[in-house]
Amino acid sequence: MPSISKKGFSMPESPIRKLVPYAEKAKKEGVKVIHLNIGQPDIKTPKIALDAVKNNTISVLSYSRTEGSEAYREKLARYYANHDIEVTAQDILVTTGGSEALSFTMGSIADSDDEIIIPEPFYANYNGFATAMGVTVVPVVSQIDNNFALPPIEAFEKLITPRTKAILICNPGNPTGYLYTREEIKKIAAIAKKHDLFLISDEVYREFTYDGKEHYSILQEPGMDEHAIIVDSVSKRYSMCGARIGCMVSKNKDVMKTALKFAQARLSPPTYAQIASEAALETPLSYFEDVKKEYVSRRNLLIGELEKIEGIKIGHPQGAFYCIAELPIKDTDVFAQWLLEEFRVDGETVMVAPAAGFYASEGLGKNQIRIAYVLDKDRLKRAVFILKEALKSYKDQ
Amino acid sequence: MPSISKKGFSMPESPIRKLVPYAEKAKKEGVKVIHLNIGQPDIKTPKIALDAVKNNTISVLSYSRTEGSEAYREKLARYYANHDIEVTAQDILVTTGGSEALSFTMGSIADSDDEIIIPEPFYANYNGFATAMGVTVVPVVSQIDNNFALPPIEAFEKLITPRTKAILICNPGNPTGYLYTREEIKKIAAIAKKHDLFLISDEVYREFTYDGKEHYSILQEPGMDEHAIIVDSVSKRYSMCGARIGCMVSKNKDVMKTALKFAQARLSPPTYAQIASEAALETPLSYFEDVKKEYVSRRNLLIGELEKIEGIKIGHPQGAFYCIAELPIKDTDVFAQWLLEEFRVDGETVMVAPAAGFYASEGLGKNQIRIAYVLDKDRLKRAVFILKEALKSYKDQ
Ligand SMILES: Cc1ncc(COP(=O)(O)O)c(C=O)c1O
Ligand SMILES: Cc1ncc(COP(=O)(O)O)c(C=O)c1O
Repeated sequence: MPSISKKGFSMPESPIRKLVPYAEKAKKEGVKVIHLNIGQPDIKTPKIALDAVKNNTISVLSYSRTEGSEAYREKLARYYANHDIEVTAQDILVTTGGSEALSFTMGSIADSDDEIIIPEPFYANYNGFATAMGVTVVPVVSQIDNNFALPPIEAFEKLITPRTKAILICNPGNPTGYLYTREEIKKIAAIAKKHDLFLISDEVYREFTYDGKEHYSILQEPGMDEHAIIVDSVSKRYSMCGARIGCMVSKNKDVMKTALKFAQARLSPPTYAQIASEAALETPLSYFEDVKKEYVSRRNLLIGELEKIEGIKIGHPQGAFYCIAELPIKDTDVFAQWLLEEFRVDGETVMVAPAAGFYASEGLGKNQIRIAYVLDKDRLKRAVFILKEALKSYKDQ
Repeated sequence: MPSISKKGFSMPESPIRKLVPYAEKAKKEGVKVIHLNIGQPDIKTPKIALDAVKNNTISVLSYSRTEGSEAYREKLARYYANHDIEVTAQDILVTTGGSEALSFTMGSIADSDDEIIIPEPFYANYNGFATAMGVTVVPVVSQIDNNFALPPIEAFEKLITPRTKAILICNPGNPTGYLYTREEIKKIAAIAKKHDLFLISDEVYREFTYDGKEHYSILQEPGMDEHAIIVDSVSKRYSMCGARIGCMVSKNKDVMKTALKFAQARLSPPTYAQIASEAALETPLSYFEDVKKEYVSRRNLLIGELEKIEGIKIGHPQGAFYCIAELPIKDTDVFAQWLLEEFRVDGETVMVAPAAGFYASEGLGKNQIRIAYVLDKDRLKRAVFILKEALKSYKDQ
């Protein structure tokens, strides 16, 4: 029997994948599982986007342009201009989700065993794309005690080698909810320039910033044209995860030309989803105001309730819709499984994402979980209550 | 300025990409360009598929399951059963086009510098996926004189090394239009078994077989469960190229488990497109009968007209909607550019795909072009007429 590749063998599994069978078993037994583990918003997709697809007049559903339709890219450029990011349609490559933008970016800038430095904890699938592309992830630890702020510059500089090709940040962060300040972006941009590295910024949560804080993009920072690559997506912005549209944005012509070759091989991004995404750009501002208000009040409720739990430590999020909580237990993998297998409050339990999967450093994050606040407040409150009860009865080994 | 990757540098460009600016220039000057170079069918997408999307009732456009929706995969299994391919939903991974199925397949079975043997000429993007995944393509030449039939077994065996992981065939073939016989499939399956290789079969043109010939899939061949991987797509089958839905089919559990990890990293295939693809499975048989009738009559017209041209040689297609023609000239790259830049018949010219890009062996195919017969017959006839006139006035260097 022919064997699979070493690469395939070492492809990481999603941090919650091994919990899924336990969740399914619990559900089959009639247990209600409240999902704190999922980054899929419950927010309604803007009607204008849904209607554009319903009212489409396609008769031959053909390939679009490889780089995305001209009309959509022109409008995207205007969207960026409204966010003080000055780019043209030529600087934008439409991709199949932010996911594909991450693959194309890594493939375009790094060869086998080249290194990309990423503050951890980070979005777990960065590991998957890096493995698929043969690139090495080099983590630099950020700390819950300062809400996962940018690690000190020296920590980055210590890790830079001749193989380092880029620094990748996620702003605001999944799983941390941390929003980098303008000063932090300036610092990290300066390292990229000093060491001639690419700076990749995953800005798929750009709009989700709270407490009056503003997002500062790496492409707003002067002098970054040759270094900056933005990874973006409609998934969370418009609660359109199923569309599978994202983009890669860079003013570095070599990077864009190279990414286009990866894109040509896969022909085009999905056509219906581009129709939805183009229409979504006309979403009224009031939609975002409502959504933000909702997330802020969920976050406040979540943090307030979590803080009542003894022995818990929280990274206070100012963006996105995640938060990391440190629990007074040894191994949240075991705890998460126990919640699904054994713990119930009136027939209900919760599913959490153990945080170890968001760290590349072996052993880190084992006492942390990630909570996504994409549930309505009643459910969220109930979930934290269950978590609190669970911690009371959990016997740590 | 940081530099792009060696991999990115060596990513191939599409064989026609360098002609595109010439085509655009000609069009701007008011010249009508008849496209013989494109594999995008003009056939109408089945109404049942288009309507399913128009009538969708989605309010939150969420991620689907990573492996594709259960309902769609169940129905796909039935589709395969109807084609005498016995698989279950568990043997199917829904992908973003056949393109992604090719990437996942290569990544799952081959490491850097592992080799995949492919009869040439072949679908040019195999090169792109192989380069992106760091896999080496080893071509084995097929010949226009026998319509690009399977090269002799000895030719394959000569190329097998300890690094060989798979043989990849396209059946029926793009760009050859060749349909492998049952005997050829048995032969190639036997080599795969003997040398413990995977056999990957790109069957995206499965339905497009003519002259009463039947498609024989590698998964119909007994004893291939551990070896066979089918790459499939709705793109051409239902003239739904813009959907971006395909799948990978294998009964090898290790392969499917590994491919699923690649799939998890990119979250899910597009949701609207799955709705369309699921509905498309209910397309009435009469649709395919009509489409096949149309393609056969186009092919007959095309071949008939081409055969009237002096000095031309044709690979006679029995499937798909492509044909390779050998022209009495030295370099079809130069010829194709000349057609776009200089040659006109009453303000019209044709765009053809030079075939060198479909060969991995340097120097092969330089006097060949690929013609796609996805135009209506009047246009097709006119295009061949223009080609004939062009060959008369072309001065070969
Ligand atoms: C930080 C981050 N980047 C990228 C993605 C990829 O999303 P998509 O491919 O749906 O755009 C996600 C999805 O959760 C994410 O959280
Ligand atoms: C032989 C072959 N395989 C795969 C594909 C990929 O198609 P898609 O990604 O649209 O399914 C094509 C498209 O032209 C093709 O001709």
